[in-house]
Amino acid sequence: MIPKPYLVFLGDVTEPTYTKTGFGLRDWAPEHIVGEWSLPQAKVSLGLVRLSPKDAAAAGAQAMVLGIATVGGKIPQSYVQTMVDALACGLDIVSGLHTRLSSIPELVEAAKVYGRRLHDVRQPPHAYPVGDGLKRKGLRLLTVGTDCALGKKYTAMTLARALCQRGIDADFRATGQTGIMISGQGVPLDAVVADFISGAVEYLTPEAGPLHWDIIEGQGSLFHPGFAGVTVGLVHGAQADAMILCHDPRRETIYGLPHIKIPPLSEVMRRYIELAQLTNPKTRFVGISLNTSDYPEPDALRMIKSLEAEHAMPVTDPIRYGVEDIVDLLEAEFTVAA
Amino acid sequence: MIPKPYLVFLGDVTEPTYTKTGFGLRDWAPEHIVGEWSLPQAKVSLGLVRLSPKDAAAAGAQAMVLGIATVGGKIPQSYVQTMVDALACGLDIVSGLHTRLSSIPELVEAAKVYGRRLHDVRQPPHAYPVGDGLKRKGLRLLTVGTDCALGKKYTAMTLARALCQRGIDADFRATGQTGIMISGQGVPLDAVVADFISGAVEYLTPEAGPLHWDIIEGQGSLFHPGFAGVTVGLVHGAQADAMILCHDPRRETIYGLPHIKIPPLSEVMRRYIELAQLTNPKTRFVGISLNTSDYPEPDALRMIKSLEAEHAMPVTDPIRYGVEDIVDLLEAEFTVAA
Repeated sequence: MIPKPYLVFLGDVTEPTYTKTGFGLRDWAPEHIVGEWSLPQAKVSLGLVRLSPKDAAAAGAQAMVLGIATVGGKIPQSYVQTMVDALACGLDIVSGLHTRLSSIPELVEAAKVYGRRLHDVRQPPHAYPVGDGLKRKGLRLLTVGTDCALGKKYTAMTLARALCQRGIDADFRATGQTGIMISGQGVPLDAVVADFISGAVEYLTPEAGPLHWDIIEGQGSLFHPGFAGVTVGLVHGAQADAMILCHDPRRETIYGLPHIKIPPLSEVMRRYIELAQLTNPKTRFVGISLNTSDYPEPDALRMIKSLEAEHAMPVTDPIRYGVEDIVDLLEAEFTVAA
Repeated sequence: MIPKPYLVFLGDVTEPTYTKTGFGLRDWAPEHIVGEWSLPQAKVSLGLVRLSPKDAAAAGAQAMVLGIATVGGKIPQSYVQTMVDALACGLDIVSGLHTRLSSIPELVEAAKVYGRRLHDVRQPPHAYPVGDGLKRKGLRLLTVGTDCALGKKYTAMTLARALCQRGIDADFRATGQTGIMISGQGVPLDAVVADFISGAVEYLTPEAGPLHWDIIEGQGSLFHPGFAGVTVGLVHGAQADAMILCHDPRRETIYGLPHIKIPPLSEVMRRYIELAQLTNPKTRFVGISLNTSDYPEPDALRMIKSLEAEHAMPVTDPIRYGVEDIVDLLEAEFTVAA
């Protein structure tokens, strides 16, 4: 468990592209962020209050998070002094970069001296078992996608939050680095060795009370020739009672791979259902999550209505219209759990 | 590339169960084995000529292979002196155990002194790319299974050998540790990080001449809740023009997981075809490989005939009856490649 709240460190970043993690934390965990810090040469800001590690610690921060991507995932030597300072002020350090914090002797030494911890969220923290598909108690929902990067994390987080607000017992289960930083725990699925993908997901979402929901962050897509293996392990490990299909209506082919077509949504859902039935024969779709950010309101609503009519389930853009219809459905149709 | 031929080292093993790798090498690469060696307390023999590392080197051996599994995959300290001796005699060392040879200082030092190499076949030797599904020239066949451990490696090796004997240009492409030891190269797919499974397979079977066959060793099963992710990455990376379904007729459920049923073979093939079409729309099954070792001859032949009639394709037990019908089909129907 990573201690919160966080100070977000942006290093010497000069382009917003490289601060996706920082913006994700700002937008999705504002209650867990006390402010931002960066080196003098940085040119990007999250628009948060600037706090030095010392001031952040005084404001209650428990950890400093590297909110940036760097070329090759390396941690520049120029960041190390700031991280040592943060450790000295009583903050843990959190990184999703490829270079491990634990490979930098100054940080290891400082962490020891000041009694703080280094969190490499790209490193799987456990040796996971091989998945066995044995039924676990509790309810599970998994977000799946026609492609990568179209809202699976945001949909899951929005839904977990909406369920909690409705008084329903639910946890967001992170499977990627940003999700792990936001929720403070999870499994970095893309870094798990192939034989243990579904076992890692079984570990991530253990047996729970019969009415407890685990809302699991999806990864990849069954239709992505590079990442489908991850998706399949995730689907089998999740044993989802319910799935939400995430889609970006602008995409007809997989992002960056114009030779790979995305099938019609009904076909996409049929394929996910077939897969998921291996470990949960009762699995079903309970909604479609559309990323309509590029469409004016009337077009977005028209698409949503049309898909609702076609697929007979709630359709929404979670950022624009929330997920209340899906929460209604979960509340109405899963009250007596298997 | 691992240099051959090999001396097989059995350590102090007392049970045949732990010598699967040694027996696999003996049965499948006898032309690459000069003999066996073990410690005095060993109780298992492969029935090969006993040669010390020195005598094996004199007989032409280039490497000593650890032909055993050990508890927890550890290399016992009692093996180290024999391995140092082997290095001193001019042999490389090959291991598929979890403990890396390169983590044992005496071996690293001896390898340096004697100018030999340590081969950890469980360690992926490369940083693989993410798979992109772009069409590569050449022909590819993948063995897939209803379950794990029912003949995918043996079927692929038998077929590759039969193609070569027929004068057809073909390579066996190993995806597991024993296969890598046998063929001297390959990708240890179960040790590749999840995001790079299909990319590793694309690397393993690169573009080739239009009539060249890569015969790819399958792994896992689409119906195994622990390993399906590996299988899916392998199917997408392989871009197989042809698949052979491997099946053990005794199994109705996944081995060790009685709660997971194996679907009918026609359904199994439909699911594999659907998956494989993502990266090769023309993929098809060209045969079924049955493990009939537990059945008397008349029963085995009856099963084979019955499945041939049902599925209209060659059915065989490669160990009992060879794979000539499948070679005939490949030769007849894939001569003009895409």
